[in-house]
Amino acid sequence: MENFEFYNPTKVVFGKGQIERLKDLVPKTRVLMLFGEGSIKTNGVYDQVKNALSSHEIIECGGVQANPTYEKAMEVLELIKKEKIDFILAVGGGSVIDTAKFLSLAAFFPGTPWSILTNREQTYSKALPFACVLTLPATGSEMNCYFVLSRGDEKLSGGHSLLYPVFSILDPSVSFTLSQKQVGNGVVDAFVHVLEQYLTYPAQAPLQDRFAESVLKTLIEEGPKSYSRLDNYEARANHMWCATMALSSVFGVGVPQDWSTHQIGHELTALYGIDHARTLAIVLPAMLWSMRNEKRQKLMQYAERVWDLKGSDEELIQRAIRRTSDFFESLGLPTKLLSYDLKENPTEKVIARLLARGFTPMGEKQQVTLEKVREVLEFAKR
Amino acid sequence: MENFEFYNPTKVVFGKGQIERLKDLVPKTRVLMLFGEGSIKTNGVYDQVKNALSSHEIIECGGVQANPTYEKAMEVLELIKKEKIDFILAVGGGSVIDTAKFLSLAAFFPGTPWSILTNREQTYSKALPFACVLTLPATGSEMNCYFVLSRGDEKLSGGHSLLYPVFSILDPSVSFTLSQKQVGNGVVDAFVHVLEQYLTYPAQAPLQDRFAESVLKTLIEEGPKSYSRLDNYEARANHMWCATMALSSVFGVGVPQDWSTHQIGHELTALYGIDHARTLAIVLPAMLWSMRNEKRQKLMQYAERVWDLKGSDEELIQRAIRRTSDFFESLGLPTKLLSYDLKENPTEKVIARLLARGFTPMGEKQQVTLEKVREVLEFAKR
Repeated sequence: MENFEFYNPTKVVFGKGQIERLKDLVPKTRVLMLFGEGSIKTNGVYDQVKNALSSHEIIECGGVQANPTYEKAMEVLELIKKEKIDFILAVGGGSVIDTAKFLSLAAFFPGTPWSILTNREQTYSKALPFACVLTLPATGSEMNCYFVLSRGDEKLSGGHSLLYPVFSILDPSVSFTLSQKQVGNGVVDAFVHVLEQYLTYPAQAPLQDRFAESVLKTLIEEGPKSYSRLDNYEARANHMWCATMALSSVFGVGVPQDWSTHQIGHELTALYGIDHARTLAIVLPAMLWSMRNEKRQKLMQYAERVWDLKGSDEELIQRAIRRTSDFFESLGLPTKLLSYDLKENPTEKVIARLLARGFTPMGEKQQVTLEKVREVLEFAKR
Repeated sequence: MENFEFYNPTKVVFGKGQIERLKDLVPKTRVLMLFGEGSIKTNGVYDQVKNALSSHEIIECGGVQANPTYEKAMEVLELIKKEKIDFILAVGGGSVIDTAKFLSLAAFFPGTPWSILTNREQTYSKALPFACVLTLPATGSEMNCYFVLSRGDEKLSGGHSLLYPVFSILDPSVSFTLSQKQVGNGVVDAFVHVLEQYLTYPAQAPLQDRFAESVLKTLIEEGPKSYSRLDNYEARANHMWCATMALSSVFGVGVPQDWSTHQIGHELTALYGIDHARTLAIVLPAMLWSMRNEKRQKLMQYAERVWDLKGSDEELIQRAIRRTSDFFESLGLPTKLLSYDLKENPTEKVIARLLARGFTPMGEKQQVTLEKVREVLEFAKR
């Protein structure tokens, strides 16, 4: 096992009817309530939050979009400064939470806020405290310190140990009004988060492996139930808790990690606006096939323990990847680029963008070279 | 799944050579270094800690014993007040850490400190910050907010959300000098911590179940290696991380819990001085057999998933319990009271003590009545 640090101070308040606890959890200070494009006004969450905070001083700000933008964040930053905000309550999914995280750092940052995303060497000593009311189980942003933001056709990620939410309220029942597409995306997003931390090479960390397999197996069982009956509380609760755990570092510590699928996926979102989870569904199976020799041992373990498959090496791996693709497709996510009417071959564009960003080989052993990226995208077409 | 809160702000710093990080992690304030009966002076940990803290102001205090006592804690409390201590560094196993937790609350408590253990209704607003250097993988105290303390023949537990260590350093290599007995005890202690949270009744919490099974299976694999070769780094690292995770609430949230084995075990320790883990090894198999109808569904799942057994109900459960006992015995822990030369039948004494404490039926459904306790102890003899 590699040396590691494990740290996650976010308090999760999980279950039915928990939004009313905002009353005691949110400090009596100047609070910005940040939300998205208005779905919380139709699904009752807005009213629940406002009722719980009826004796708080709340400044509201909606309009955060999927694939949240730097431009919108800058608009909110101005409001935060003008209104002397002391606490952000992010009410929504990963986009709203990620925007809150960026703002949390930007609020006290003396330089150009964009450099928070472009300069990883920067140090920070202070961040605006924030908390979440989660409405969409997917990204895990509610219990980690990472965020992703877009500016024009750039999609960049950041993270800092100051950026754990103070608390996150997870009431599965408020997600009953999500569309099937959102739920399917959420299951796949969580599933791939686990695989990026698990499908690398053996690192003598059997507990982390089994924790990862636990989330994968539970998503395989509960994901389809959460997807096919949108108001199934128990299935949604399990899906939601899996999504939170998937990126909470509970099994990402002490082991190598990959994340090359995410890096390529981000380019596809930035170039063509394909939903984040949908880019992962396209890239991941192709990546696993392309890297099947480098990842052989863990792919075998994945096939045997997660999909209960038995067989010979090559065939076993092929079947495990096929099962993964079928799982994504069963949740409504296409796994081939052909399913999107892109009007061009994305391969060289993606490669050019990776190069422009100062490309270095990706993956757990830096073996995902530009040649591999090309191979992955060619596999992903068919 | 039941509603729950998940909160665990302790920072774990895990791995070889990490004790030197104390230099930056311990605040520059008046620090009490609390330790046990001197093993840290022979195994090199004392020197490592002192070297790391060479520019800190340290007050030392040793002598905390296994089954730590209130009397010793009161002695240390006086020192804390006299020396105006601001931070406690607990260097040792569960006993030292548990004493530090009690002191953390007692330092600011205006009443009689003993009532911290006897009056659960008390509220606290402040605790002395403390951190740990773990030397013995077993209790999980390094990443939770619970503690146990003895006074005469009373053994009582407490807990409070203020009592999470600020950080805990876990270097598996400093535990190479433990005895086989300590290592065997540590594996069984962690194993039973998991079972108390897992072997109850199904609660539609498949992820928590699988996380629990993950720790159990890993302890079954790695525990014997950690026990049979005392300087096996990888095995000890996995054993250590399992023990920490076992009582960290990662899989104890949203599900029913039992803890009746612990309650009976504490009485056996208080009465006869049997090591904590060894009381669990005696009580648990008898408890599972005695409660096999109430726990039937989870016992079946335990047999199938943890021990890979197949068969009919009654026989399957019997074999799973037998495998559990055999596992404990293989680690050097007797599973029958007969192995201890008690010179009396403990049954009625234990029952009298539970009654004197205002006994209410124990377990996940309050089904462990005094009759059941009697049955368990009778089973445990043979």
